[in-house]
Amino acid sequence: MLNNKLLSDQEISRLSKDIPSWQLKDKKLIRTFHFKNFVEAFGFMTKVAILAESFCHHPEWMNVYSKVEIQLTTHDLGGISSNDFELAKAIDRL
Amino acid sequence: MLNNKLLSDQEISRLSKDIPSWQLKDKKLIRTFHFKNFVEAFGFMTKVAILAESFCHHPEWMNVYSKVEIQLTTHDLGGISSNDFELAKAIDRL
Amino acid sequence: MLNNKLLSDQEISRLSKDIPSWQLKDKKLIRTFHFKNFVEAFGFMTKVAILAESFCHHPEWMNVYSKVEIQLTTHDLGGISSNDFELAKAIDRL
Amino acid sequence: MLNNKLLSDQEISRLSKDIPSWQLKDKKLIRTFHFKNFVEAFGFMTKVAILAESFCHHPEWMNVYSKVEIQLTTHDLGGISSNDFELAKAIDRL
Repeated sequence: MLNNKLLSDQEISRLSKDIPSWQLKDKKLIRTFHFKNFVEAFGFMTKVAILAESFCHHPEWMNVYSKVEIQLTTHDLGGISSNDFELAKAIDRL
Repeated sequence: MLNNKLLSDQEISRLSKDIPSWQLKDKKLIRTFHFKNFVEAFGFMTKVAILAESFCHHPEWMNVYSKVEIQLTTHDLGGISSNDFELAKAIDRL
Repeated sequence: MLNNKLLSDQEISRLSKDIPSWQLKDKKLIRTFHFKNFVEAFGFMTKVAILAESFCHHPEWMNVYSKVEIQLTTHDLGGISSNDFELAKAIDRL
Repeated sequence: MLNNKLLSDQEISRLSKDIPSWQLKDKKLIRTFHFKNFVEAFGFMTKVAILAESFCHHPEWMNVYSKVEIQLTTHDLGGISSNDFELAKAIDRL
Protein backbone atom coordinates (compact mmCIF):
# COMPACT_ATOMS: atom_id res chain seq x y z
CA MET A 1 0.00 0.00 0.00
CA LEU A 2 1.51 3.21 -1.14
CA ASN A 3 1.35 6.58 0.51
CA ASN A 4 0.69 5.14 3.89
CA LYS A 5 0.85 7.73 6.68
CA LEU A 6 0.23 8.14 10.36
CA LEU A 7 -3.27 9.40 11.13
CA SER A 8 -4.13 12.26 13.45
CA ASP A 9 -6.37 11.63 16.46
CA GLN A 10 -9.11 13.46 14.61
CA GLU A 11 -8.80 11.24 11.54
CA ILE A 12 -8.68 8.11 13.70
CA SER A 13 -11.80 9.20 15.53
CA ARG A 14 -13.62 9.83 12.28
CA LEU A 15 -12.51 6.57 10.57
CA SER A 16 -13.30 4.49 13.67
CA LYS A 17 -16.98 4.98 12.97
CA ASP A 18 -16.61 2.61 9.99
CA ILE A 19 -15.29 -0.18 12.20
CA PRO A 20 -17.39 -0.07 15.39
CA SER A 21 -16.33 -3.57 16.46
CA TRP A 22 -12.72 -2.48 16.89
CA GLN A 23 -11.43 -0.77 20.00
CA LEU A 24 -8.73 1.85 20.10
CA LYS A 25 -6.08 1.21 22.76
CA ASP A 26 -2.38 2.04 23.09
CA LYS A 27 -2.15 3.26 19.49
CA LYS A 28 -3.65 0.01 18.22
CA LEU A 29 -6.92 -1.15 16.72
CA ILE A 30 -8.01 -4.25 18.63
CA ARG A 31 -10.77 -6.77 18.04
CA THR A 32 -11.44 -10.12 19.66
CA PHE A 33 -13.26 -12.84 17.74
CA HIS A 34 -14.95 -15.89 19.20
CA PHE A 35 -15.68 -19.04 17.23
CA LYS A 36 -17.36 -22.29 18.08
CA ASN A 37 -14.12 -24.27 18.11
CA PHE A 38 -10.47 -24.29 17.08
CA VAL A 39 -11.14 -25.47 13.52
CA GLU A 40 -13.35 -22.46 12.82
CA ALA A 41 -10.91 -20.10 14.55
CA PHE A 42 -7.96 -21.29 12.51
CA GLY A 43 -9.95 -21.27 9.26
CA PHE A 44 -10.63 -17.59 9.96
CA MET A 45 -6.96 -16.97 10.77
CA THR A 46 -5.94 -18.45 7.43
CA LYS A 47 -8.23 -16.05 5.60
CA VAL A 48 -6.81 -13.12 7.58
CA ALA A 49 -3.27 -14.33 6.85
CA ILE A 50 -3.92 -14.39 3.11
CA LEU A 51 -5.46 -10.90 3.23
CA ALA A 52 -2.64 -9.53 5.37
CA GLU A 53 0.08 -10.68 3.00
CA SER A 54 -1.74 -9.30 -0.03
CA PHE A 55 -2.06 -5.96 1.84
CA CYS A 56 1.63 -6.15 2.80
CA HIS A 57 0.45 -5.32 6.28
CA HIS A 58 0.46 -7.88 9.07
CA PRO A 59 -1.32 -8.12 12.40
CA GLU A 60 -0.07 -8.81 15.87
CA TRP A 61 -2.42 -11.56 16.90
CA MET A 62 -2.92 -14.32 19.38
CA ASN A 63 -5.09 -17.38 19.48
CA VAL A 64 -6.13 -19.77 22.17
CA TYR A 65 -8.60 -22.45 21.12
CA SER A 66 -11.71 -20.68 19.79
CA LYS A 67 -10.59 -17.12 20.51
CA VAL A 68 -8.57 -14.88 18.20
CA GLU A 69 -7.40 -11.40 19.21
CA ILE A 70 -6.12 -9.14 16.45
CA GLN A 71 -4.15 -5.97 17.07
CA LEU A 72 -3.38 -3.60 14.22
CA THR A 73 -0.76 -0.90 14.32
CA THR A 74 1.96 0.40 12.02
CA HIS A 75 5.30 -0.14 13.75
CA ASP A 76 7.32 1.73 11.14
CA LEU A 77 5.34 4.86 11.77
CA GLY A 78 4.77 4.37 15.49
CA GLY A 79 1.00 4.51 15.45
CA ILE A 80 -2.19 3.89 13.51
CA SER A 81 -2.11 4.45 9.78
CA SER A 82 -4.60 4.14 6.97
CA ASN A 83 -3.27 0.61 6.33
CA ASP A 84 -4.57 -0.43 9.73
CA PHE A 85 -8.04 0.79 8.87
CA GLU A 86 -7.96 -0.85 5.45
CA LEU A 87 -6.98 -4.21 6.91
CA ALA A 88 -9.56 -3.89 9.72
CA LYS A 89 -12.29 -3.26 7.16
CA ALA A 90 -11.16 -6.20 5.00
CA ILE A 91 -11.21 -8.48 8.07
CA ASP A 92 -14.71 -7.26 8.94
CA ARG A 93 -15.88 -8.18 5.45
CA LEU A 94 -14.79 -11.81 5.86
CA MET B 1 -10.69 -44.43 13.06
CA LEU B 2 -10.82 -47.99 14.16
CA ASN B 3 -12.76 -50.83 12.67
CA ASN B 4 -13.05 -49.16 9.33
CA LYS B 5 -14.51 -51.41 6.64
CA LEU B 6 -15.71 -51.38 3.07
CA LEU B 7 -19.45 -50.75 2.76
CA SER B 8 -21.86 -52.77 0.67
CA ASP B 9 -23.86 -51.06 -2.08
CA GLN B 10 -26.90 -51.36 0.13
CA GLU B 11 -25.18 -49.65 3.07
CA ILE B 12 -23.81 -46.92 0.80
CA SER B 13 -27.26 -46.32 -0.61
CA ARG B 14 -28.77 -46.06 2.86
CA LEU B 15 -26.02 -43.81 4.31
CA SER B 16 -26.07 -41.53 1.25
CA LYS B 17 -29.40 -40.17 2.42
CA ASP B 18 -27.58 -38.37 5.24
CA ILE B 19 -25.34 -36.52 2.81
CA PRO B 20 -27.59 -35.51 -0.09
CA SER B 21 -25.10 -32.93 -1.40
CA TRP B 22 -22.57 -35.64 -2.24
CA GLN B 23 -22.65 -37.65 -5.42
CA LEU B 24 -21.61 -41.24 -5.77
CA LYS B 25 -19.32 -41.90 -8.72
CA ASP B 26 -16.54 -44.41 -9.47
CA LYS B 27 -16.52 -45.69 -5.88
CA LYS B 28 -16.09 -42.17 -4.57
CA LEU B 29 -18.20 -39.61 -2.73
CA ILE B 30 -17.86 -36.32 -4.59
CA ARG B 31 -18.96 -32.81 -3.75
CA THR B 32 -18.10 -29.50 -5.38
CA PHE B 33 -18.13 -26.29 -3.35
CA HIS B 34 -18.28 -22.76 -4.70
CA PHE B 35 -17.15 -19.70 -2.75
CA LYS B 36 -17.14 -16.03 -3.51
CA ASN B 37 -13.37 -15.86 -3.97
CA PHE B 38 -10.07 -17.65 -3.39
CA VAL B 39 -9.64 -16.41 0.17
CA GLU B 40 -12.95 -17.98 1.23
CA ALA B 41 -12.19 -21.17 -0.71
CA PHE B 42 -8.80 -21.64 0.93
CA GLY B 43 -10.15 -20.79 4.39
CA PHE B 44 -12.58 -23.64 3.89
CA MET B 45 -9.82 -25.95 2.66
CA THR B 46 -7.80 -25.26 5.80
CA LYS B 47 -10.74 -26.28 7.97
CA VAL B 48 -11.18 -29.49 5.94
CA ALA B 49 -7.43 -30.18 6.20
CA ILE B 50 -7.52 -29.92 10.00
CA LEU B 51 -10.56 -32.21 10.17
CA ALA B 52 -9.04 -34.71 7.77
CA GLU B 53 -5.84 -35.11 9.74
CA SER B 54 -7.71 -35.52 13.01
CA PHE B 55 -9.83 -38.23 11.32
CA CYS B 56 -6.65 -39.82 9.91
CA HIS B 57 -8.51 -39.86 6.63
CA HIS B 58 -7.59 -37.54 3.77
CA PRO B 59 -9.43 -36.37 0.68
CA GLU B 60 -8.43 -36.26 -2.93
CA TRP B 61 -9.25 -32.69 -3.76
CA MET B 62 -8.65 -29.96 -6.24
CA ASN B 63 -9.06 -26.23 -6.20
CA VAL B 64 -9.13 -23.56 -8.83
CA TYR B 65 -9.83 -20.05 -7.58
CA SER B 66 -13.23 -20.12 -5.83
CA LYS B 67 -14.07 -23.76 -6.56
CA VAL B 68 -13.14 -26.77 -4.44
CA GLU B 69 -13.91 -30.34 -5.46
CA ILE B 70 -13.58 -33.03 -2.81
CA GLN B 71 -13.48 -36.75 -3.55
CA LEU B 72 -13.62 -39.27 -0.74
CA THR B 73 -12.67 -42.90 -1.07
CA THR B 74 -10.66 -45.42 0.93
CA HIS B 75 -7.72 -46.48 -1.19
CA ASP B 76 -6.55 -49.20 1.21
CA LEU B 77 -9.87 -50.96 0.92
CA GLY B 78 -10.58 -50.16 -2.71
CA GLY B 79 -13.91 -48.44 -2.23
CA ILE B 80 -16.13 -46.40 0.06
CA SER B 81 -15.89 -47.04 3.78
CA SER B 82 -17.56 -45.65 6.87
CA ASN B 83 -14.61 -43.22 7.22
CA ASP B 84 -15.65 -41.59 3.97
CA PHE B 85 -19.15 -40.99 5.27
CA GLU B 86 -17.87 -39.70 8.61
CA LEU B 87 -15.56 -37.21 6.92
CA ALA B 88 -18.29 -36.14 4.45
CA LYS B 89 -20.65 -35.45 7.35
CA ALA B 90 -17.99 -33.51 9.26
CA ILE B 91 -17.30 -31.39 6.16
CA ASP B 92 -21.02 -30.74 5.74
CA ARG B 93 -21.16 -29.47 9.31
CA LEU B 94 -18.51 -26.80 8.65
CA MET C 1 0.39 -7.97 -11.82
CA LEU C 2 0.14 -5.35 -14.48
CA ASN C 3 0.97 -5.68 -18.12
CA ASN C 4 0.50 -9.39 -18.13
CA LYS C 5 0.57 -10.91 -21.59
CA LEU C 6 0.57 -14.23 -23.38
CA LEU C 7 4.05 -15.52 -24.14
CA SER C 8 5.24 -16.85 -27.48
CA ASP C 9 6.58 -20.40 -27.72
CA GLN C 10 10.04 -18.92 -28.04
CA GLU C 11 9.70 -16.87 -24.88
CA ILE C 12 8.25 -19.85 -23.01
CA SER C 13 11.12 -22.01 -24.13
CA ARG C 14 13.65 -19.42 -22.98
CA LEU C 15 11.99 -18.73 -19.62
CA SER C 16 11.52 -22.43 -18.89
CA LYS C 17 15.24 -22.71 -18.30
CA ASP C 18 14.77 -20.78 -15.04
CA ILE C 19 12.29 -23.31 -13.72
CA PRO C 20 13.68 -26.72 -14.73
CA SER C 21 11.44 -28.60 -12.25
CA TRP C 22 8.30 -27.55 -14.11
CA GLN C 23 6.98 -29.34 -17.15
CA LEU C 24 5.22 -27.75 -20.04
CA LYS C 25 2.04 -29.54 -21.09
CA ASP C 26 -1.26 -28.47 -22.66
CA LYS C 27 -0.40 -24.77 -22.32
CA LYS C 28 0.28 -25.21 -18.64
CA LEU C 29 3.31 -25.24 -16.35
CA ILE C 30 3.06 -28.33 -14.16
CA ARG C 31 5.02 -29.48 -11.15
CA THR C 32 4.35 -32.29 -8.69
CA PHE C 33 5.62 -32.06 -5.13
CA HIS C 34 6.03 -34.93 -2.67
CA PHE C 35 6.17 -34.47 1.08
CA LYS C 36 6.62 -36.86 3.94
CA ASN C 37 3.01 -36.62 5.07
CA PHE C 38 -0.22 -34.64 4.81
CA VAL C 39 0.75 -32.08 7.45
CA GLU C 40 3.84 -31.06 5.48
CA ALA C 41 1.92 -31.07 2.20
CA PHE C 42 -0.81 -28.78 3.51
CA GLY C 43 1.69 -26.48 5.22
CA PHE C 44 3.26 -26.01 1.80
CA MET C 45 -0.14 -25.46 0.20
CA THR C 46 -0.88 -22.69 2.70
CA LYS C 47 2.31 -20.91 1.76
CA VAL C 48 1.47 -21.23 -1.94
CA ALA C 49 -2.06 -19.95 -1.26
CA ILE C 50 -0.75 -16.83 0.47
CA LEU C 51 1.69 -16.19 -2.39
CA ALA C 52 -0.95 -16.78 -5.04
CA GLU C 53 -3.39 -14.26 -3.57
CA SER C 54 -0.69 -11.63 -3.19
CA PHE C 55 0.24 -12.22 -6.87
CA CYS C 56 -3.48 -12.07 -7.81
CA HIS C 57 -2.79 -15.22 -9.77
CA HIS C 58 -4.11 -18.59 -8.62
CA PRO C 59 -3.13 -22.17 -9.43
CA GLU C 60 -5.19 -25.12 -10.48
CA TRP C 61 -4.00 -27.69 -8.01
CA MET C 62 -4.81 -31.00 -6.48
CA ASN C 63 -3.70 -32.79 -3.38
CA VAL C 64 -3.94 -36.33 -2.17
CA TYR C 65 -2.21 -37.06 1.14
CA SER C 66 1.49 -36.18 0.71
CA LYS C 67 1.33 -35.24 -2.98
CA VAL C 68 0.54 -31.81 -4.41
CA GLU C 69 0.26 -31.15 -8.14
CA ILE C 70 0.26 -27.54 -9.27
CA GLN C 71 -0.77 -26.40 -12.74
CA LEU C 72 -0.25 -22.82 -13.81
CA THR C 73 -1.93 -21.20 -16.77
CA THR C 74 -3.65 -17.92 -17.52
CA HIS C 75 -7.27 -18.66 -18.35
CA ASP C 76 -8.10 -15.09 -19.35
CA LEU C 77 -5.46 -15.16 -22.05
CA GLY C 78 -5.79 -18.80 -23.03
CA GLY C 79 -2.21 -19.83 -22.39
CA ILE C 80 0.97 -19.25 -20.42
CA SER C 81 1.78 -15.70 -19.41
CA SER C 82 4.59 -14.02 -17.48
CA ASN C 83 2.41 -14.30 -14.35
CA ASP C 84 2.67 -18.06 -14.56
CA PHE C 85 6.44 -17.90 -14.63
CA GLU C 86 6.55 -15.40 -11.77
CA LEU C 87 4.36 -17.58 -9.57
CA ALA C 88 6.33 -20.73 -10.51
CA LYS C 89 9.55 -19.01 -9.49
CA ALA C 90 8.06 -17.79 -6.22
CA ILE C 91 6.86 -21.32 -5.42
CA ASP C 92 10.31 -22.71 -6.20
CA ARG C 93 11.81 -20.25 -3.71
CA LEU C 94 9.66 -21.57 -0.85
CA MET D 1 -5.10 -38.17 24.40
CA LEU D 2 -6.25 -40.42 27.16
CA ASN D 3 -5.00 -40.60 30.70
CA ASN D 4 -3.58 -37.13 30.65
CA LYS D 5 -2.39 -35.95 34.04
CA LEU D 6 -0.57 -33.10 35.71
CA LEU D 7 3.17 -33.70 36.00
CA SER D 8 5.24 -33.24 39.14
CA ASP D 9 8.16 -30.79 39.14
CA GLN D 10 10.48 -33.75 39.08
CA GLU D 11 8.80 -35.29 36.03
CA ILE D 12 8.77 -31.91 34.25
CA SER D 13 12.45 -31.46 34.95
CA ARG D 14 13.25 -34.91 33.60
CA LEU D 15 11.07 -34.60 30.47
CA SER D 16 12.38 -31.11 29.70
CA LYS D 17 15.68 -32.66 28.68
CA ASP D 18 13.95 -34.01 25.55
CA ILE D 19 12.88 -30.54 24.47
CA PRO D 20 15.84 -28.27 25.19
CA SER D 21 14.53 -25.47 22.94
CA TRP D 22 11.52 -24.92 25.20
CA GLN D 23 11.61 -22.81 28.32
CA LEU D 24 9.64 -23.45 31.45
CA LYS D 25 7.89 -20.36 32.82
CA ASP D 26 4.71 -19.76 34.83
CA LYS D 27 3.61 -23.38 34.48
CA LYS D 28 3.97 -23.22 30.71
CA LEU D 29 6.34 -24.58 28.09
CA ILE D 30 7.35 -21.69 25.85
CA ARG D 31 9.25 -21.53 22.59
CA THR D 32 9.74 -18.68 20.16
CA PHE D 33 10.31 -19.39 16.47
CA HIS D 34 11.76 -16.99 13.91
CA PHE D 35 11.22 -17.33 10.17
CA LYS D 36 12.42 -15.37 7.19
CA ASN D 37 9.04 -13.80 6.53
CA PHE D 38 5.32 -13.97 7.24
CA VAL D 39 4.58 -16.60 4.58
CA GLU D 40 7.00 -19.05 6.18
CA ALA D 41 5.74 -18.22 9.67
CA PHE D 42 2.12 -18.85 8.76
CA GLY D 43 2.95 -22.02 6.84
CA PHE D 44 4.50 -23.30 10.05
CA MET D 45 1.48 -22.19 12.07
CA THR D 46 -0.81 -24.16 9.77
CA LYS D 47 1.21 -27.31 10.38
CA VAL D 48 1.07 -26.73 14.13
CA ALA D 49 -2.69 -26.11 13.92
CA ILE D 50 -3.27 -29.43 12.15
CA LEU D 51 -1.13 -31.26 14.70
CA ALA D 52 -2.81 -29.55 17.63
CA GLU D 53 -6.30 -30.51 16.54
CA SER D 54 -5.30 -34.11 15.93
CA PHE D 55 -3.77 -34.16 19.44
CA CYS D 56 -6.94 -32.54 20.83
CA HIS D 57 -4.59 -30.16 22.59
CA HIS D 58 -4.22 -26.55 21.52
CA PRO D 59 -1.56 -23.92 22.09
CA GLU D 60 -1.77 -20.36 23.30
CA TRP D 61 0.22 -18.64 20.63
CA MET D 62 0.94 -15.29 19.11
CA ASN D 63 2.39 -14.16 15.83
CA VAL D 64 3.75 -10.91 14.55
CA TYR D 65 5.19 -11.01 11.05
CA SER D 66 8.02 -13.60 11.05
CA LYS D 67 7.88 -14.44 14.75
CA VAL D 68 5.71 -17.11 16.38
CA GLU D 69 5.59 -17.66 20.13
CA ILE D 70 3.97 -20.87 21.36
CA GLN D 71 2.94 -21.47 24.97
CA LEU D 72 1.78 -24.88 26.07
CA THR D 73 -0.11 -25.58 29.26
CA THR D 74 -3.11 -27.64 30.29
CA HIS D 75 -5.78 -25.27 31.55
CA ASP D 76 -8.11 -28.01 32.73
CA LEU D 77 -5.48 -29.35 35.07
CA GLY D 78 -3.89 -26.03 35.97
CA GLY D 79 -0.36 -26.85 34.90
CA ILE D 80 1.89 -28.82 32.58
CA SER D 81 0.74 -32.29 31.56
CA SER D 82 2.12 -35.04 29.40
CA ASN D 83 0.00 -33.64 26.52
CA ASP D 84 2.09 -30.49 26.59
CA PHE D 85 5.28 -32.46 26.21
CA GLU D 86 3.82 -34.61 23.44
CA LEU D 87 2.73 -31.57 21.46
CA ALA D 88 6.07 -29.81 22.06
CA LYS D 89 7.92 -32.82 20.71
CA ALA D 90 5.64 -33.07 17.68
CA ILE D 91 6.20 -29.37 16.94
CA ASP D 92 9.97 -29.85 17.25
CA ARG D 93 9.77 -32.64 14.69
CA LEU D 94 8.21 -30.36 12.06
